[in-house]
Amino acid sequence: MTNVKQLVSDGIKKITPYVPGKPLEELEREYGIAGAIKMASNENPLGPSPKAVKAIENHLSTIHRYPDANSNALKEMLSKKLGVSQESIIPANGSNEIIEFSLKAFLRPGYEVIIPEPTFSLYTKFTQAMDGIPVKVPLKKFSVDLKSVREKIGPKTRIIFINNPNNPTGTIIKKNEFEDFLHSIPESIVIILDEAYGEFVTDPDFPRGDCYLNGPRWIITMRTFSKVYGLAGLRIGYGLASRELTHYLNKIRQPFNVNSLAQAAACAALDDDQHLKKTLRIVAEGLNYLYQNLDQLKLEYIPTQANYLMVKVGDNCDKVYELMLREGVIVRPLSSFGFSEYIRVSVGNQQENERFIASLKKVLQYSN
Amino acid sequence: MTNVKQLVSDGIKKITPYVPGKPLEELEREYGIAGAIKMASNENPLGPSPKAVKAIENHLSTIHRYPDANSNALKEMLSKKLGVSQESIIPANGSNEIIEFSLKAFLRPGYEVIIPEPTFSLYTKFTQAMDGIPVKVPLKKFSVDLKSVREKIGPKTRIIFINNPNNPTGTIIKKNEFEDFLHSIPESIVIILDEAYGEFVTDPDFPRGDCYLNGPRWIITMRTFSKVYGLAGLRIGYGLASRELTHYLNKIRQPFNVNSLAQAAACAALDDDQHLKKTLRIVAEGLNYLYQNLDQLKLEYIPTQANYLMVKVGDNCDKVYELMLREGVIVRPLSSFGFSEYIRVSVGNQQENERFIASLKKVLQYSN
Repeated sequence: MTNVKQLVSDGIKKITPYVPGKPLEELEREYGIAGAIKMASNENPLGPSPKAVKAIENHLSTIHRYPDANSNALKEMLSKKLGVSQESIIPANGSNEIIEFSLKAFLRPGYEVIIPEPTFSLYTKFTQAMDGIPVKVPLKKFSVDLKSVREKIGPKTRIIFINNPNNPTGTIIKKNEFEDFLHSIPESIVIILDEAYGEFVTDPDFPRGDCYLNGPRWIITMRTFSKVYGLAGLRIGYGLASRELTHYLNKIRQPFNVNSLAQAAACAALDDDQHLKKTLRIVAEGLNYLYQNLDQLKLEYIPTQANYLMVKVGDNCDKVYELMLREGVIVRPLSSFGFSEYIRVSVGNQQENERFIASLKKVLQYSN
Repeated sequence: MTNVKQLVSDGIKKITPYVPGKPLEELEREYGIAGAIKMASNENPLGPSPKAVKAIENHLSTIHRYPDANSNALKEMLSKKLGVSQESIIPANGSNEIIEFSLKAFLRPGYEVIIPEPTFSLYTKFTQAMDGIPVKVPLKKFSVDLKSVREKIGPKTRIIFINNPNNPTGTIIKKNEFEDFLHSIPESIVIILDEAYGEFVTDPDFPRGDCYLNGPRWIITMRTFSKVYGLAGLRIGYGLASRELTHYLNKIRQPFNVNSLAQAAACAALDDDQHLKKTLRIVAEGLNYLYQNLDQLKLEYIPTQANYLMVKVGDNCDKVYELMLREGVIVRPLSSFGFSEYIRVSVGNQQENERFIASLKKVLQYSN
């Protein structure tokens, strides 16, 4: 048989596998410990909305039926909540799937995709999978540098990724800056605006994607139920875009991309204001606690608009990560992002935040 | 802004939307009826395995956590059950996702994909989405005609789809025929073998994909938990292929493509032999009942190896479909497949099968 390597493209060969946050069970098994905590994947520290859990229970008897291919109930709720038409909403198997729809629709081999880096690694991987050319633009002071992004635009540029707030830095692009940028770029470019953490942003000067559905440029906004809504395990997110765009994105979507329990749970979670507010309060209080304690420890961090925080631990973040694992605390070392002095920690509940601070304190004494 | 139509490829423009089987709630709302039954999507007439439902309940408290990115527990179980290595298994958000992985890995714009037709419509749609060229080969006596498939192979052929049993005809390719075909095609071609209904096959001369992991040609086999395992709503299936192939397919896979409840439920369903056997028995008995009653009505049908059946209702299948809807019975009219004289009915439970026969009898008297 022909060698498989000859059958796949160079782009695919270049892809390095995604490394997910270590699962709790794996850590506990490997290290022989119990009661470990995970602060590595920016999940909701409160757990799922009880209304969402109830909604799943109510749908268990029909899981042998295919899901609603159009997620109509969810689109109806989102439409009302966001004040956008149902035609502008495209449900996805986690918001990451919106990356794939967008690249499939607008990218062809040899064309360029601009990616401000370091950022979420899947933008590059999916560009490579389509044989597109990722054009990386370094962050400036930990923030997306739109001036440099603009300078990289060329005749082959098709797509620009903007992660706002940016993962892992937690910084945001502000409204004026974003709007000036939109007006300054060619009309043929499609922006993929990843707002996975948008609900956590407290800065009023934050440009939300649903305000730009009608221009001045083509924008596909990514939203998720994995973070503030606490449904990461179910895989559900959505895209927001003008009808002209969703017309084509829907052609590419698998008809049953979103499972029926996720649809039911997402509707219930949208209806659970109490859980949303409590989550935002816990994260805000947790961040304050972390800021204060890191200040006391004289550790630098990047002030964040999201539910995670970059903390400077010295030039040995992988070692700190390993030592934290032994304490039963999973964080994310940022060496693979090019920040070898930093870890990223998800804001947890009060108990988790206290344990993180105590463990970090202990570990930094060990490792320095 | 540039017209979106100019930004997408011709292949994407050609895609016609997938039409799913009508949902029960929609029918009941539209026609103002209650107690309708759906025999249109080849779902499990018994419902989900009770063990699968229990497994979901046990996982509800952790749905705010990301799923296991590698579906390790499921791969371990499948590996033991099928006697293949875990590295040969690639879990998917419904087996349809395996189509996408395979096309992304091996298809580039302008290359050809051979599709025996009529068959499952998504093979063509996803080929078009990648700007590949679908090369259609007509069935012969309702069966995949491998001789004609071979004749269509050219220098641009990359992939051949084989749906075994074929949907909607229910016919199979036999072992010898399949093996001769494999030996006769170029070594650079990848076969995508869709076995969504493979578990229902009673003919012992059926070539199962897991027997060809090591050749004589590259084969990616698609399997699903949506049919015999009764988990269509959860979206879970898997691919089987040699390690050389899964190495690349895994690079293209979203890390969290399969939700955590689906993983838990699939493991439990695999462990529920009683439910599997009962399902196979109900389907076999149901088919016998349908055959006998269609014979009595002097209606032609295509003997099937799957859990659905093509029934000849005259040259007005859309009208028959509409009249059946009024009786509260959803079937699939096959005009869009090019079989304008046929409907496809999923084998239901005894009550559903009786209602189908009674309604069909009534409706055919009306419409003829």
